[in-house]
Amino acid sequence: VSIGRFSLNQRTIANWTVGELVSHCVRAGVPSVGLWREPVAAYGLERSAELVRKAGLRVSSLCRGGFFTTADRKAVLEDNRRAIDEAATLGAACLVLVVGGLPPGSTDLPGAREQVRDVLAQLAPYAGERGVRLALEPMHPIFCSDRGVLSTLDQALDLAEALPAEQVGVVVDTYHVWWDPRAEAAIARAAGRIASFQVSDWVVPLPADNLLGRGLPGDGCIDLRRLRQVTDKAGYTGDIEVEVFNEQVWARPGAEVLESLLRRHLEHVL
Amino acid sequence: VSIGRFSLNQRTIANWTVGELVSHCVRAGVPSVGLWREPVAAYGLERSAELVRKAGLRVSSLCRGGFFTTADRKAVLEDNRRAIDEAATLGAACLVLVVGGLPPGSTDLPGAREQVRDVLAQLAPYAGERGVRLALEPMHPIFCSDRGVLSTLDQALDLAEALPAEQVGVVVDTYHVWWDPRAEAAIARAAGRIASFQVSDWVVPLPADNLLGRGLPGDGCIDLRRLRQVTDKAGYTGDIEVEVFNEQVWARPGAEVLESLLRRHLEHVL
Repeated sequence: VSIGRFSLNQRTIANWTVGELVSHCVRAGVPSVGLWREPVAAYGLERSAELVRKAGLRVSSLCRGGFFTTADRKAVLEDNRRAIDEAATLGAACLVLVVGGLPPGSTDLPGAREQVRDVLAQLAPYAGERGVRLALEPMHPIFCSDRGVLSTLDQALDLAEALPAEQVGVVVDTYHVWWDPRAEAAIARAAGRIASFQVSDWVVPLPADNLLGRGLPGDGCIDLRRLRQVTDKAGYTGDIEVEVFNEQVWARPGAEVLESLLRRHLEHVL
Repeated sequence: VSIGRFSLNQRTIANWTVGELVSHCVRAGVPSVGLWREPVAAYGLERSAELVRKAGLRVSSLCRGGFFTTADRKAVLEDNRRAIDEAATLGAACLVLVVGGLPPGSTDLPGAREQVRDVLAQLAPYAGERGVRLALEPMHPIFCSDRGVLSTLDQALDLAEALPAEQVGVVVDTYHVWWDPRAEAAIARAAGRIASFQVSDWVVPLPADNLLGRGLPGDGCIDLRRLRQVTDKAGYTGDIEVEVFNEQVWARPGAEVLESLLRRHLEHVL
């Protein structure tokens, strides 16, 4: 049992700068980090890339591109090309795509899903040229209207499989897929397409801001170990990234949260 | 265009007694109502049944049985047999089943789903003998952990199809199924099994109590007309029941809400 594949997504400890994240991870023996564009920009892209490289850390993912359903297609493409360039600079294993919800006032869900397919096809070759893998993230249906119209892993795979595997993969995020009766079968289907595996737990009641309702591994009802095993069986050997958005967790000292996460990783995931 | 298939679920106007519900519906020309066990018990079961029958109203559904995942199997069976008896007394077209979430502390989702299958098989013949059709309600995955481990219409159909169609059908509730990429295909598959069709709309942000986040038809992002058409095409000719749980709606005068519902039914559903 080791933490050799453990990755800390930086939004789990939201108040750390990239500099603090790197020094804490090095001290704790964490081999990999998941980065977000905004804190990376705040610290400096090149500076972040150099710091992470010198520290010997892997970058398991960069969050995030996407929002393909926005009306201004030109702006969407420009922003996502920038995100791809940033992922290349950071040497990230993938760029996570949150594909966007329904446009304001729209009830055309099939149309929004078609738009995701179109924009993805336009971006994939650009990502391929820069050695960046796009990672489609199916999202829990609670987010379908305002954040991500891809609701199941099967649906994400339907899109990904139309494009080369080195250009487009999928994210298996326990929070988003755990409820799906097809989850295990879809993870098996995803063999060769799993670009990222993220863990957090489902806890109820959800807070008023549903986005911040994720629990630390072990605090909720998801069989994390089982999903990790199924993901292993599908041949995924990449990092296991802990990504928890939770205001109560953010209020605690980061080093203490990290220590707890490592313990919980052994107890509930490995 | 007519309101001939319109049904008012009584929880949409929560402060009406069964008596008030019936008189308002008769006055407004509403031909059908969906009832709940608690207000029916408060008004009296036999008294409710007689009132509704004399008024010439149909009872499109009785809510609800279920919670099959509760540990005390004997109590579950007893309570559900009582609910079946009540549905028979009321002449309800079906008894809606909210199957229950995960038991406290459990992460065994497949086990909970198996338990639903077992209890359903035990209850179905009893329902059949009393001429009551059980209606499995797949629920939006936001409710998977604490309310309903059946998350998709396909999953509900997998269970229903193992039993006679006159004993077990499914509920198509727009709020629960709209996000599902398989929704239209699953509704087509449900031909002959649709026991109830319920409408309400998806609005964001959800309130702190997620259960009360439903919007009146037309206030949200669901293509209600499309889902109604697909349900028609699957051969469903039963009532179209409006079921909205929303504290702001409950705070308004019931007669005004009903008038608005009838208008919205024409505009957004028919």
